[in-house]
Amino acid sequence: MQPSLLREILKVTHEPNVISFAGGLPAPSSFPVDEFSEACEKVLREGGRQVLQYGASEGDRRLRELIAQRLPWKVSADDVLITNGSQQGVDLVARVLVDEGSTVLVERPTYPGALAAFKASQPFIAEVATDSDGILLDQLRLQATTDGTDARLVYVLPNFQNPTGRTMGDVRRRQLARLCDDLALPVVEDNPYGDLWFDAAPPAPVSSFIPGRSIYLGSFSKVLAPGIRLGFAVAPKEIFPKLLQAKQSCDLHTSTLVQRVAAEMLASGFIDRHVPTVRALYKSQRDVMLSAMERHLAPLGVTWGVPAGGMFIWANAPQGLDIMNWWQRSIERRVVFLPARPFFASGNPDQAFRLSFVTSTVDEIERGMSVLADTLQQQLTLL
Amino acid sequence: MQPSLLREILKVTHEPNVISFAGGLPAPSSFPVDEFSEACEKVLREGGRQVLQYGASEGDRRLRELIAQRLPWKVSADDVLITNGSQQGVDLVARVLVDEGSTVLVERPTYPGALAAFKASQPFIAEVATDSDGILLDQLRLQATTDGTDARLVYVLPNFQNPTGRTMGDVRRRQLARLCDDLALPVVEDNPYGDLWFDAAPPAPVSSFIPGRSIYLGSFSKVLAPGIRLGFAVAPKEIFPKLLQAKQSCDLHTSTLVQRVAAEMLASGFIDRHVPTVRALYKSQRDVMLSAMERHLAPLGVTWGVPAGGMFIWANAPQGLDIMNWWQRSIERRVVFLPARPFFASGNPDQAFRLSFVTSTVDEIERGMSVLADTLQQQLTLL
Repeated sequence: MQPSLLREILKVTHEPNVISFAGGLPAPSSFPVDEFSEACEKVLREGGRQVLQYGASEGDRRLRELIAQRLPWKVSADDVLITNGSQQGVDLVARVLVDEGSTVLVERPTYPGALAAFKASQPFIAEVATDSDGILLDQLRLQATTDGTDARLVYVLPNFQNPTGRTMGDVRRRQLARLCDDLALPVVEDNPYGDLWFDAAPPAPVSSFIPGRSIYLGSFSKVLAPGIRLGFAVAPKEIFPKLLQAKQSCDLHTSTLVQRVAAEMLASGFIDRHVPTVRALYKSQRDVMLSAMERHLAPLGVTWGVPAGGMFIWANAPQGLDIMNWWQRSIERRVVFLPARPFFASGNPDQAFRLSFVTSTVDEIERGMSVLADTLQQQLTLL
Repeated sequence: MQPSLLREILKVTHEPNVISFAGGLPAPSSFPVDEFSEACEKVLREGGRQVLQYGASEGDRRLRELIAQRLPWKVSADDVLITNGSQQGVDLVARVLVDEGSTVLVERPTYPGALAAFKASQPFIAEVATDSDGILLDQLRLQATTDGTDARLVYVLPNFQNPTGRTMGDVRRRQLARLCDDLALPVVEDNPYGDLWFDAAPPAPVSSFIPGRSIYLGSFSKVLAPGIRLGFAVAPKEIFPKLLQAKQSCDLHTSTLVQRVAAEMLASGFIDRHVPTVRALYKSQRDVMLSAMERHLAPLGVTWGVPAGGMFIWANAPQGLDIMNWWQRSIERRVVFLPARPFFASGNPDQAFRLSFVTSTVDEIERGMSVLADTLQQQLTLL
């Protein structure tokens, strides 16, 4: 199951009457359509022709300043590169830092879109084992320093990781920063979900401890809307010009209209008012899903971790179950979840699967879980 | 002078009181700001949350259909991939077709943004000589088939080429198609300027003769606005899935909002009504510039070709002149043109320089040419 197959699954989820826990699609009900429309009208009225003209490859100056000001450590607008979502951030990093035969270190499991972007440069992907606190540092040190390894970077998602929903604690972050500094190993810290915390903000970014060795990737996909394709990279002075050159040869620059609209919605304070409503929505959806899982799936031997934010619950099916069979039978009943395979670069993944709690309604979550329990019960009877 | 330096020059051109003939910036007066704003409002009102949600990597279905219908040969919407401008089209092609040490054939001179995108894959760039009708086919055959050459594609700009403004005639197009078919050599046909013809539409695209061997790149930058970053690639069935996979790992998809707005402006007939006004504007600008050149520069020994469309005049300074000195002195007088260097992958370019006639006003063209004549006269006196 390649990332492209992942996209195929996502297509199924666009069919009517399908309940999807598979996608990483933010809840459309959270998209601020009217405010977005007003911001479009305003920036076109005020900026008009500039908004439609070619712009600088590094991005709109005002947007870069607004982003730099919001980050929880000292960042200059000069260090902020505007990208088409954090996906393009990963892709640019891969182009600049990764060569054929070099090694990229990633958490096991990790985001398939990052694996796809790295693989384009044909490196060895070294999957580093994780625990509930994130990447295991002894393992990371070992794998980064094994003879013959040309380690170029370690890619981590410290906040509400995709797919596990886990958050790296403050101590592990500081230790990871120290280790990477020791090893002179760049950290690529991807943070698409960090604003979506439920009870408390996550600890300070790894990048805040080693800004000179870190590339930090952010996104507007989850706090504004994913379809606009807007994100950013914060990079050290030595790497920034190379990322900029790569961005330029990729697509010259990110849509000026989209950048101006986001800047407008940041400057007006709208995003600051909006994000808490998304948090509250997603927290209640998480709780509804956890409650339904407790009633429907726990009695059948399914286990899971409770995410403190983000969009995903990472669960484990009972040992011995053929998870792909269960998945197939569930799709036939028009309920989709995501087996673990795309999140692993190699090897046979375990019994894990990912559930998104943000795309479906409360009613759909309840009905979907009931169907999953039904199909799981049937599969278990066959064992 | 690298493409990044080219962008640096373009920054100078944003300063006040600078008359720039250097940039490839379309005339902002041609941007349909009000209609664009109305289209934004409409697609957000009607499509709302879908417009802001993640979309398919291949692009918006309706936009792909509208593009396919407009092309002057039989193209299925399934063969159309939406990109962030035609720059991303070149970049995706480079990723899919070009490997380190393989050979990419280009016209000499050619568009620096394409050279930059190809160079990221570290090929040999084989520059093929051109005449006033475009790429020389005997040369192309020779360079593509030289022992040890692993030729992957030939990149051409048949319509109002950047930088030369030249158009490839119908006969040369058919011969090029036949040759590429003979050699099993893919053609990458970049057509950002094709709609900007002045007196007669250009001949049928090379791709229309060999659709199975051609990747055709189009753009909305010149007919709508460049800042939105919207273009497309038309590719054969064997290559399309690879381009799609590359697009997905680059940035998932192009901004849905931007795609829907363009689809709306195509479907409403606006673009068809708008393009003739851009043509008329650019034709009159060309004529103003030619007239000013005739009066100011011809007496000093400058020569040029007359473009039948597009945005650029390609001119030659008198032999013996140090063109970079002239360029420096002109910048000090706040008039900028573009020396030929960025358009050549290697070697010492000749005395050529490029003038854009679309960014400046009629008054600026007259004043700018007068300054160029003045600085040129001074340089010639030093010879």
